[in-house]
Amino acid sequence: MKLKTSLGALVALGLLSTMSMADQVKLSPQEMKKATQIYFDRCAGCHGMLRKGALGPNLLPKTTRPIGTKTLEYIIYNGTPGGMPNWGSSGELTKAETELMAKFIQLPPVAPPEKSMADMKKSWQVIVPPKDRPKKPQTKRDWKNYFGIVLRDVGKVAIVDGDTKELVSIVPSGFATHILRMSKSGRYMYAIGRDGRAEVIDLWMKKPQVVAKIKVCNDARSIETSKAPGYEDKYAVVGCYWPPSIVTLKGDTLEPIQIVSTASYTYDTGEFRREARVASIVAEHNKPIWVINIKETGQVWLYNYSDPRNPKIKMLMAERYLHDGGWALGKRYFMVAANARNKIVAVDTKKGKIAAIIPTGGIKPHPGRGANIDHPKYGPIWCTGHIGSNDIVCIGTDPEHHKKYAWKVVADIKLPGEGGGNLFVKTHPKCKYIIADRPLNPDRKLQTQVYVIDKTKLKLVKTLPTPKKFIEPRKVNVNGKEVLIKPRGPVHIEFNKDGSEFWVSVWGNKYVPSAILVYDSKTLKLKKAITGDWVRTPTGKFNVYNTMYDIY
Amino acid sequence: MKLKTSLGALVALGLLSTMSMADQVKLSPQEMKKATQIYFDRCAGCHGMLRKGALGPNLLPKTTRPIGTKTLEYIIYNGTPGGMPNWGSSGELTKAETELMAKFIQLPPVAPPEKSMADMKKSWQVIVPPKDRPKKPQTKRDWKNYFGIVLRDVGKVAIVDGDTKELVSIVPSGFATHILRMSKSGRYMYAIGRDGRAEVIDLWMKKPQVVAKIKVCNDARSIETSKAPGYEDKYAVVGCYWPPSIVTLKGDTLEPIQIVSTASYTYDTGEFRREARVASIVAEHNKPIWVINIKETGQVWLYNYSDPRNPKIKMLMAERYLHDGGWALGKRYFMVAANARNKIVAVDTKKGKIAAIIPTGGIKPHPGRGANIDHPKYGPIWCTGHIGSNDIVCIGTDPEHHKKYAWKVVADIKLPGEGGGNLFVKTHPKCKYIIADRPLNPDRKLQTQVYVIDKTKLKLVKTLPTPKKFIEPRKVNVNGKEVLIKPRGPVHIEFNKDGSEFWVSVWGNKYVPSAILVYDSKTLKLKKAITGDWVRTPTGKFNVYNTMYDIY
Repeated sequence: MKLKTSLGALVALGLLSTMSMADQVKLSPQEMKKATQIYFDRCAGCHGMLRKGALGPNLLPKTTRPIGTKTLEYIIYNGTPGGMPNWGSSGELTKAETELMAKFIQLPPVAPPEKSMADMKKSWQVIVPPKDRPKKPQTKRDWKNYFGIVLRDVGKVAIVDGDTKELVSIVPSGFATHILRMSKSGRYMYAIGRDGRAEVIDLWMKKPQVVAKIKVCNDARSIETSKAPGYEDKYAVVGCYWPPSIVTLKGDTLEPIQIVSTASYTYDTGEFRREARVASIVAEHNKPIWVINIKETGQVWLYNYSDPRNPKIKMLMAERYLHDGGWALGKRYFMVAANARNKIVAVDTKKGKIAAIIPTGGIKPHPGRGANIDHPKYGPIWCTGHIGSNDIVCIGTDPEHHKKYAWKVVADIKLPGEGGGNLFVKTHPKCKYIIADRPLNPDRKLQTQVYVIDKTKLKLVKTLPTPKKFIEPRKVNVNGKEVLIKPRGPVHIEFNKDGSEFWVSVWGNKYVPSAILVYDSKTLKLKKAITGDWVRTPTGKFNVYNTMYDIY
Repeated sequence: MKLKTSLGALVALGLLSTMSMADQVKLSPQEMKKATQIYFDRCAGCHGMLRKGALGPNLLPKTTRPIGTKTLEYIIYNGTPGGMPNWGSSGELTKAETELMAKFIQLPPVAPPEKSMADMKKSWQVIVPPKDRPKKPQTKRDWKNYFGIVLRDVGKVAIVDGDTKELVSIVPSGFATHILRMSKSGRYMYAIGRDGRAEVIDLWMKKPQVVAKIKVCNDARSIETSKAPGYEDKYAVVGCYWPPSIVTLKGDTLEPIQIVSTASYTYDTGEFRREARVASIVAEHNKPIWVINIKETGQVWLYNYSDPRNPKIKMLMAERYLHDGGWALGKRYFMVAANARNKIVAVDTKKGKIAAIIPTGGIKPHPGRGANIDHPKYGPIWCTGHIGSNDIVCIGTDPEHHKKYAWKVVADIKLPGEGGGNLFVKTHPKCKYIIADRPLNPDRKLQTQVYVIDKTKLKLVKTLPTPKKFIEPRKVNVNGKEVLIKPRGPVHIEFNKDGSEFWVSVWGNKYVPSAILVYDSKTLKLKKAITGDWVRTPTGKFNVYNTMYDIY
């Protein structure tokens, strides 16, 4: 009788379908907890916290149930040609874990928790108050040539002297730090973890350390600072994945000031998306504006922070799903990828409107910040690679003086072989090459090379295979079990301050140290390998000077 | 075994508490359907669609379960001194219905449906396309002196000639139309139903009729038009309660253009409110801005509609819960009630910031649009009444020339007796009085009078009891049952175009006709009673001219 009552109420509440699903797939609370964590770490990025889909398809029961546990498990284990990683065969997940996840995604999604200002403040910690911080740099090193290096899987950030290549400091950070950004003066380095933990590191200290931290959200990808004249070093901003929101913080203490929800309607079909994630944020240099790219709704928000408690937001309808991007030369046009539509959106920040939406011709553009060239024929052009195809494409970005080429793909440079897999392209005004990685290519050879493109010829002129010793598979002891580690990469490229070197990361595993390789940007010779026990899972590298000024 | 599985999954999903509640209160699907409708009609306004509370307390199971069915039923039937209406003893709900509602609010709230652009478009209907509409007024009447009169419970709008008092037209509208607004030219009259249905009526037609309609949302309270130079009659905007959003429409056809969600964080505690309802919208006359007041988050949004697909919004942190308001003289400052905090927020639309937040000294301010006075001593002042107390208060609104009185309560005029209950105050520049109603006062005598305040003395100078014949209780046959109807009111005051008359509504019941009383605004004599079989539940009255120019 009790059961009947409950069922009656649940039927009335529209939960009956939930129950009939729950009927057949069983998970214990312990299994649910584990699966929820794996989902958050591995799946939510592409499929969404609410499982409504984004770059990956939706994983709601209505989609997953008809597929069934066996097939889902196969897909999770082996991946798909469409871009789903092979979590099982790559060794990231065990057989039991792939089976667990195949079941988990057939159950109704669990609503993730909200986060209020009070929740945030509980985690807020000023470790060194501004008054106790140095009044001027306490080091003789050229701290503007420091590199912040994300040691992803060990939750740390290394600070390395770009001149001497010495490790200056190593500080704890959030889980799987996504990016580092610098304050306008360069003094403060900001880190954001995938777990929404933000840190500010004071580079003026002899040994830079975390001076304040706060957990802003449950899931985040972006952090940025206020760069306009009059607002230097004043504010920081975190773009949250969950809860989907924009959180403004005080620049020096990370005290939270304001939260604005990004949940709204898709730009095209006008459907409500509770999960409208902030994919990336970049500050304008001349106006108090953050360019905020919202993934699911396909909207670019020009967020005026001059009165941070009372923000002014211009909402630009753009394209889906917005991801990452960078400034074109001159810093008027912000170029951002709409990866589900294979397009690049050019945002005219001067006029506050979308200048153009350009099909790239490739599959899943993934620019990082992209790479700029002042080309003799095409004028200022901006280039991006693709995850899903072999194209490095360059787009004209100067409608005033090179109208003929503006918002057109002027070059499509094909990487050799098959399988795409590029993540980042990078250059420096002093370097005549664009450097591209390809860590997601399935082929061992293609995956472990760096690709060199001539900026004038717009052609691939060289490939730099990573010396064997850095990428040799080796067996290591992990919790008493022998595991074969196959270092991948190199991944992510960063130049030093004067552009004479570029650095790439060998993508290891947290159980063994790997290396950061430093190349001469003119001769393309390997100059040095930065190694040491601390070099574990190095990913993004951010030169202070180049990040301050958005040089790429 | 099946049960155990289901329970296991539900426990894991955090739904166990739901189930233990559902255990004890039972409703059939038919009962749920009926209760959901009653909740929407009677309760959601104050307690919120998601039952998280607003002007009324939250009605989530954790609150209601400990109170229990008997006590909840008593409260619903008899009301409370805090402002909860006596739904049972007033005859609005039957005994069985109050019991049903007492049970319903102990069950977990049902998530209301979302509404997409496609859903909206399905309901969109252009009845007379713009090309087939008159090119100039087809009537010899002074159509700018028309009154639009909401016939609330019969779902109609009457259009009455303010000169002759003749019924010109009567048109169908949404459920319980909340307000009418006029386009800048006055030609188009817009109606918004509580069910989110919007209509546009063409007043240039000989017999005005609905020329386009659309169901914009599931629950709404406000509609407004674009009034800035260059945007005359161009756009309409609906403020939705559910889904909480701002929907821009084409002014002539009501074609939907853009939806923006208002779900965000409370201005003070920084908590996410999915249900952040648009309480009111008023257009600036000189700039393409709508002042949008959001109830639960306590935010005023200055919404720039000049590029309607790409809106620019200045978000001002104000106070909770924002409700209704009006322009101070000069139309620079918008005065809006924060009814849960007994305050008035003065929005400086010129500077785009909050000028002041003023405690009124009364309880639950409810201004409607308020009433303006250019006072010999205090300069321009703006007055509001209160639902919960007897105060009509006036606030100085001229910081430039009357700084001493600016944002201060300069007069607190006490209505006689006890019990508050005022809903509207109104005046006209040509009238030397403010007229106030008091329909929510429990006392039969106080409830059926109109209160006259001298605009210079700032004193109550007269009360006008409604002639007995209009408010006499009478028995009517409703579906074969004899029911005693006690007309209440008068309610809501509106002036004619030249300010020589004010009109009030006798608040009847849809089963019997009532009356609209027309008073001479100088002699205060009853000039005429507008009656007829069509005069059923007249509530808001909107003079075309006064509404076009926001004269009050």
